Amino acid sequence: MLAMNLIRCCLSLARRSPSHFLNLSTTQTLVSPSSSRFKLITFQTMVSRAYTTPSHPSGKLLFRQLFEKDSSTYTYLLADVSHPDKPALLIDPVDKTAERDLSLVKELGLKLIYAMNTHVHADHITGTGLIKTKVPAVKSVISEASKSKADLLIQAGDKIYFGDLFLEVRSTPGHTLGCVTYVTGDGPDQPQPRMAFTGDALLIRGCGRTDFQGGSSHELYKSVHSQIFTLPKDTLIYPAHDYKGFTVSTVGEEMLYNPRLTRDEETFRNIMENLNLPYPKMIDLAVPANMVCGLQDLSAKPVEAISN
Amino acid sequence: MLAMNLIRCCLSLARRSPSHFLNLSTTQTLVSPSSSRFKLITFQTMVSRAYTTPSHPSGKLLFRQLFEKDSSTYTYLLADVSHPDKPALLIDPVDKTAERDLSLVKELGLKLIYAMNTHVHADHITGTGLIKTKVPAVKSVISEASKSKADLLIQAGDKIYFGDLFLEVRSTPGHTLGCVTYVTGDGPDQPQPRMAFTGDALLIRGCGRTDFQGGSSHELYKSVHSQIFTLPKDTLIYPAHDYKGFTVSTVGEEMLYNPRLTRDEETFRNIMENLNLPYPKMIDLAVPANMVCGLQDLSAKPVEAISN
Repeated sequence: MLAMNLIRCCLSLARRSPSHFLNLSTTQTLVSPSSSRFKLITFQTMVSRAYTTPSHPSGKLLFRQLFEKDSSTYTYLLADVSHPDKPALLIDPVDKTAERDLSLVKELGLKLIYAMNTHVHADHITGTGLIKTKVPAVKSVISEASKSKADLLIQAGDKIYFGDLFLEVRSTPGHTLGCVTYVTGDGPDQPQPRMAFTGDALLIRGCGRTDFQGGSSHELYKSVHSQIFTLPKDTLIYPAHDYKGFTVSTVGEEMLYNPRLTRDEETFRNIMENLNLPYPKMIDLAVPANMVCGLQDLSAKPVEAISN
Repeated sequence: MLAMNLIRCCLSLARRSPSHFLNLSTTQTLVSPSSSRFKLITFQTMVSRAYTTPSHPSGKLLFRQLFEKDSSTYTYLLADVSHPDKPALLIDPVDKTAERDLSLVKELGLKLIYAMNTHVHADHITGTGLIKTKVPAVKSVISEASKSKADLLIQAGDKIYFGDLFLEVRSTPGHTLGCVTYVTGDGPDQPQPRMAFTGDALLIRGCGRTDFQGGSSHELYKSVHSQIFTLPKDTLIYPAHDYKGFTVSTVGEEMLYNPRLTRDEETFRNIMENLNLPYPKMIDLAVPANMVCGLQDLSAKPVEAISN
């Protein structure tokens, strides 16, 4: 039965809908100054141009990027709003902003089914535990390789469905032993371009540090080059953090402009080994908590006590 | 000639491309636990469902949302990447992050033509002046009603073209006298859903204060209800600021959940008149600078002197 459904799923994924729409118009440019004020009227020649350039996904996916300012962490909300249940998931929720995220889920009429982490964070406490105390039906998700506790322990190749949409799991260790990247599906009804939630493996014009939690610059280099840079170039990169105010990049952009990962492996390893970063101030609190989804002992301690 | 081109433009806008794509698949749900690890395989029934729900725009538009953390300001980069020149514009750039924005424009191969403001900001210095010193061909844009200096003084109804795409200007005073909202075009080749860059007129679950710079709670209420809430409900709201980590909302969401603007006008005015907000700390520096695009005297003073 499982095999039959997998075959049906594969057949469904093999059907592709047309993705190019042609645009035809005839234009030219005029600028008509009128005293201190200009009328802006611009017409340009556009003939048979296809919509092929990276931009945001559209369609049945509802997508929200959310920011936690203290740790500069991005949380992502994804839902299949064409499904009657509007099943939704959160990637990398933060304890401090879990209430905000749950309010938004409620207002949008979504059914939250998964609270997922890309890895065991060292700079903040995950919101997964707190979310589970508020919405017990939610399943926490993290990689088996992280050696953490969670409802669902995933590994490379797994597909995490929410409605008719899914995320594919790619193993991208190097920042930590158990880092994964979640990538939207490659199928006819999946978002185009694809979206990669890279955690700390690949940041916009940067990457996560590799000097603790089983980190390895060799592994990180291999992960990014084999698991992320092999995705289509228009794949949107949504990292776990940004410290400069960027919200999104693409595989193509990072392959051209990432100042670390465009270098050869030896140079990359030298860069990573000489960052001289301070000891992460939250690590001693965050890692033990995050190994158990942000709740060190759910039955004994109030959640707030852990995050303070 | 101008009239003829306007007619041709209108005819072009009247052509609409199909916006609904049907999706057909047969599915059901399976969850197969395997020791501590679960295989996640979900199949669901989806029959003839249209892609009608709000999400991000796609197509020829390249769109980037950028954040300046100190003032929690969003800057928006838009470009028509299907046009040979890749003409681009920035909405509400900040002086502190102007270099970042220009680097991104360069890396993406765009030609920046406009640096625009939604209004005269009181909490930060605009990046328009600094950008013009680096890229002299860029035109600064602000409303005529703001009584500021800029290369292009726009008013309600103007269309600001970049390539084949355009922004429509809507007058939305109330936070300041000269506030405008820029809305992506309503046409066959324009982004769907539409996007509204609302400045401080409408924030996500909030709105700008109305107690200085010609502010008026009566005007703001009228502006939002007549110029923003009349847009299609799936129109994406991109504000000038967010203080809680939200990046986007929709007209429909704000009509349901904005805690101020869902109230009747009298209640709204009472709320706005009793906010008891502190005097904006940057106002005495920012407003005079922003009245001249961030450069109080371009010929005499270095830009850095103004932003410090």
